[in-house]
Amino acid sequence: MKDIAVWGFSWVPPFAQGLVRDLRVRWALEEAGLAYESRWIGTDERHSDSYRRKQPFGVVPALDSDSGTMIESGAILYAIAEQCEALMPSRQRTETLAWMFAALNTVEPPLWHLFVIDQLHNGEAWATLRRPGAVEEAKARLAALSAWLEGRDYLLGRFTAADILMATVLRFVRHTNLVAEYLPLDNYLKRCEARPAFQAALRNQEAGYLRNAPVAA
Amino acid sequence: MKDIAVWGFSWVPPFAQGLVRDLRVRWALEEAGLAYESRWIGTDERHSDSYRRKQPFGVVPALDSDSGTMIESGAILYAIAEQCEALMPSRQRTETLAWMFAALNTVEPPLWHLFVIDQLHNGEAWATLRRPGAVEEAKARLAALSAWLEGRDYLLGRFTAADILMATVLRFVRHTNLVAEYLPLDNYLKRCEARPAFQAALRNQEAGYLRNAPVAA
Repeated sequence: MKDIAVWGFSWVPPFAQGLVRDLRVRWALEEAGLAYESRWIGTDERHSDSYRRKQPFGVVPALDSDSGTMIESGAILYAIAEQCEALMPSRQRTETLAWMFAALNTVEPPLWHLFVIDQLHNGEAWATLRRPGAVEEAKARLAALSAWLEGRDYLLGRFTAADILMATVLRFVRHTNLVAEYLPLDNYLKRCEARPAFQAALRNQEAGYLRNAPVAA
Repeated sequence: MKDIAVWGFSWVPPFAQGLVRDLRVRWALEEAGLAYESRWIGTDERHSDSYRRKQPFGVVPALDSDSGTMIESGAILYAIAEQCEALMPSRQRTETLAWMFAALNTVEPPLWHLFVIDQLHNGEAWATLRRPGAVEEAKARLAALSAWLEGRDYLLGRFTAADILMATVLRFVRHTNLVAEYLPLDNYLKRCEARPAFQAALRNQEAGYLRNAPVAA
């Protein structure tokens, strides 16, 4: 994979900074030691015909390279990991992909729901009424995940692309104490976030937001 | 892959019949012409230690075979499709996986949210207040998907494993008229559901529910 460019939003409000899904792709590229450029798209521009031809749903990330455009963070990470033993042991591809889907389809939904309630609809009557049930559903998944992580440094023992997805999913509830309630889970997230590749990815994403921040009136 | 057994719930109420995620695995196996047995698990039993050792979150499906246990419908379908050109052209693996993740991580969340509102929390105050916004979010994704499907019989032109995931995701709002509002989408779902392999998978799942139905008092 050559001539890589990652598409992300040019700016998002502070509550969303460090959570937008292009972070996953940046992190994987940093782990793999692959150079990349950044492409920034505004929230208006993302519904333009030209961007929709790249990403049919008008969301981020997308990745351009010499082999064309790829969409969906999960699929992009798998494609990067296929070329990088450090992100996916060739003998454990099925298991890695299983945990990648577990992150995005089993753990993300209840955590994202809580993010939507607290960060996008905070104070609305439905959100206040729904919140206790949503917390219970999130805790059920976090408890199961924490039990799995007991005695394991990472989901498959060693670090893989699945940990990039799972850690970024857990960050959706960083505004709560939920992860901290489960010691193995709390240690796991800290272990993931301490990786130099994560820190580099975060700095890269933040650099874009700083450059593109709206000018105060 | 040999000696295949698919795990599903032994019985679910009528509103959920035909929507439980083991249907995806059955459908893929039918398309691939692979024989399989069914294993049924009760809602109590799924939180047992023995089932949690198989599936850490206590959900379905899981697939047992001569190569061990696999979890997560998306990952199971990819593993089946890797061995079956009819489910994934070998030259289009990245594109197929992208649409598999699009189905489960971009289209499923707003449709599942509407399913939860209407089928699991119908009549509750939060659900009534939240519904209009949830419908708008679902429609935004359905409109984008419908635009993509114009002039295409299936997501990649020809049928792939991604269509199995997308069609089963669209079925989560079968209790509404939302899909019917978009002609390309409506035709697409009917085209998917008309496939003999889908019909066979549905019959197999229903047969379990009939055999395991609770006895009326």
